[in-house]
Amino acid sequence: MENFEYVNPTRIIFGRGTENNAGEHTARYSKKILLHYGSQFVKKSGLLDRITASLEKAGVEYVELGGVKPNPRLSLVYEGIKLCRDHDLGFILAVGGGSTIDSAKAIAMGAVFDGDVWDFFLNKAVPQDALPLGTILTIPAAGSEASTGTVITNEEGDFKRAVNSELIYPRFSILNPEIAFSLPKFQTACGATDILAHLMERYFTNTANVAFVDRLLEATMKNIIQMAPKVLADPNDYDSWAEFMWSGTIAHNNLLNTGRIGDWASHDIEHEISGIYDVTHGAGLAVVFPAWMKYTLRQDLNRFVQWAVRVWNVELDVFAPEATAREGIKRMEAFFHSLGLGTRLKDIDVDDSRLQEMAEKCTDGNTRTVGNFVLLDQKAIYEILLLAV
Amino acid sequence: MENFEYVNPTRIIFGRGTENNAGEHTARYSKKILLHYGSQFVKKSGLLDRITASLEKAGVEYVELGGVKPNPRLSLVYEGIKLCRDHDLGFILAVGGGSTIDSAKAIAMGAVFDGDVWDFFLNKAVPQDALPLGTILTIPAAGSEASTGTVITNEEGDFKRAVNSELIYPRFSILNPEIAFSLPKFQTACGATDILAHLMERYFTNTANVAFVDRLLEATMKNIIQMAPKVLADPNDYDSWAEFMWSGTIAHNNLLNTGRIGDWASHDIEHEISGIYDVTHGAGLAVVFPAWMKYTLRQDLNRFVQWAVRVWNVELDVFAPEATAREGIKRMEAFFHSLGLGTRLKDIDVDDSRLQEMAEKCTDGNTRTVGNFVLLDQKAIYEILLLAV
Repeated sequence: MENFEYVNPTRIIFGRGTENNAGEHTARYSKKILLHYGSQFVKKSGLLDRITASLEKAGVEYVELGGVKPNPRLSLVYEGIKLCRDHDLGFILAVGGGSTIDSAKAIAMGAVFDGDVWDFFLNKAVPQDALPLGTILTIPAAGSEASTGTVITNEEGDFKRAVNSELIYPRFSILNPEIAFSLPKFQTACGATDILAHLMERYFTNTANVAFVDRLLEATMKNIIQMAPKVLADPNDYDSWAEFMWSGTIAHNNLLNTGRIGDWASHDIEHEISGIYDVTHGAGLAVVFPAWMKYTLRQDLNRFVQWAVRVWNVELDVFAPEATAREGIKRMEAFFHSLGLGTRLKDIDVDDSRLQEMAEKCTDGNTRTVGNFVLLDQKAIYEILLLAV
Repeated sequence: MENFEYVNPTRIIFGRGTENNAGEHTARYSKKILLHYGSQFVKKSGLLDRITASLEKAGVEYVELGGVKPNPRLSLVYEGIKLCRDHDLGFILAVGGGSTIDSAKAIAMGAVFDGDVWDFFLNKAVPQDALPLGTILTIPAAGSEASTGTVITNEEGDFKRAVNSELIYPRFSILNPEIAFSLPKFQTACGATDILAHLMERYFTNTANVAFVDRLLEATMKNIIQMAPKVLADPNDYDSWAEFMWSGTIAHNNLLNTGRIGDWASHDIEHEISGIYDVTHGAGLAVVFPAWMKYTLRQDLNRFVQWAVRVWNVELDVFAPEATAREGIKRMEAFFHSLGLGTRLKDIDVDDSRLQEMAEKCTDGNTRTVGNFVLLDQKAIYEILLLAV
């Protein structure tokens, strides 16, 4: 196990009707806030009305900024920063999924910074302060509701970059599983895949002696594998949504990477695909992960065997460990199929014409490697993409 | 799943040599602190010297208060409160196990309170503020290093009472597994049992639809069952101690009771035993738990079967679920024996002469019930104690 520091101060407020207390929780931080959201669903469903009613009851004034899109844009972040400054706002309440929360986090850092917030994403500056923020989660997937991360896209040049900072841990996150009832099935499937991917990126590590967190990761994977089909079969199944939602937060709140170094190559590769093609993150991950696994299997066969046996209930064939591991990958692919997702590039309308280009971009022209479990150069990424054809 | 709120802001600083940064972490809160500890081990081992060197390097002045004993005493808490006030101390650094940390928490609440700190333990007052505190853990067992709880004994009348408050979450806890190398084997065994007990108190619940946290609890139990024999066999096994120590914190940091109502009857019953006899908490729990389980088994046989199969690897006999569950209890008893602990009252030098008295005290003369999984009255507790004879 590696030495580590772990802290997560986000207060989780979980359960039925909890969004109706948003005002009370917000008022502890500021009486003048930015109310940030994305989709029309938030408005049409009546969710925003319930939240503004709660804010008004608590005497909290709010300035609205909607319009966050998937892969949240820097231009909207700039708009939010300007609103915070012009109106002297002291808190940001994000209502949405990962994109809205990530946008809010970037605004929070930018609003109290004299320079350009994009400099944080370019590693030209390190955030020293941020406005406090809170979230009301509508899509269990990205885990941003209790994480240190934000990923923003700069439209000028299509750069997608991340910042990690303890300063942007939300002060609170309100999780009501009922809000997930109306998610489209495709989005639910992509959310389940994203959560599973967060767990697998952490699971496949070269750090030795990480048995305890291995077990926690396996427990969380098994939960998502159990609950995703249930909420797809019955979108009003509160109890299964509750298990799904809570595990999505735990999957990415930094607890499950304590003492170990995760991989994250599959996320990097997927970002190249969705940078060129219009692909939902989770759908892209369902394609990349099986290919990445087939390529990296022999790096640490024991780890893949443990994963296959414990997570996918494959019977261990001690005389054929590789077959045992491959059976795990097959079951993962079958799971993605059962969610309605494909596991090959053609399933997400990506042909083989630009694979070299993606491999090159992903490694900055073969000047850097990607991932930690196996260090992947341009050629390796090209081969992984070929395995996904 | 029940609605819940969960927050845990304690920063965990984990790994080799981390106690040497105690000064730097402390200086963020105050330059004048109370240094609180218990056993002579802390002094003799050189640990205290390393810590005071680090404090001095960071420009932190300290007032020492040693002498914390197991079942920490109110009189020492009063002493600590007086020191904090007389010297205008702004932080408490606790170096020790659960007793020292609990004592520090009580001092932290009392130092900023005009009335008598014991009133918090009698529910006559609710803490509104506390000095910040940090810990350097020497014994993985009680979980107090990242919990909201403190248990203090008032020597006048031998009252043992608890307070829970978010205000006494440590600001940081330094966990270096190397510090556990020199623990006596008996204390290691009792620590493992205490951790397992914290997990089982949470596991045995009547709350439905708690599958995710069930799995996390099972994962943590399996880890302790795997690691305890290893550190007993080789007390210098850093890697196994690391898994042991980290899981001991997670077992009791409130994450694993999210959305469910725990039981805690076994803890209450054990407190009555150790209130009369000189019994170490963990050794008492190894006696009470098997008896409690035999008594409560039929409350929810499925839950016991799940526990036996998943935690103790019992093969499920679908035609004989009760036999499956009982096999789990048998394996737990065998585990305690393998740690060198007994599972009957006679093994901890308790005879059957005062069982009725303990059952009566535990229920305040049969005016209240104990536990949540099964509500136990005086007669029930007496029967459980009989099962432990």
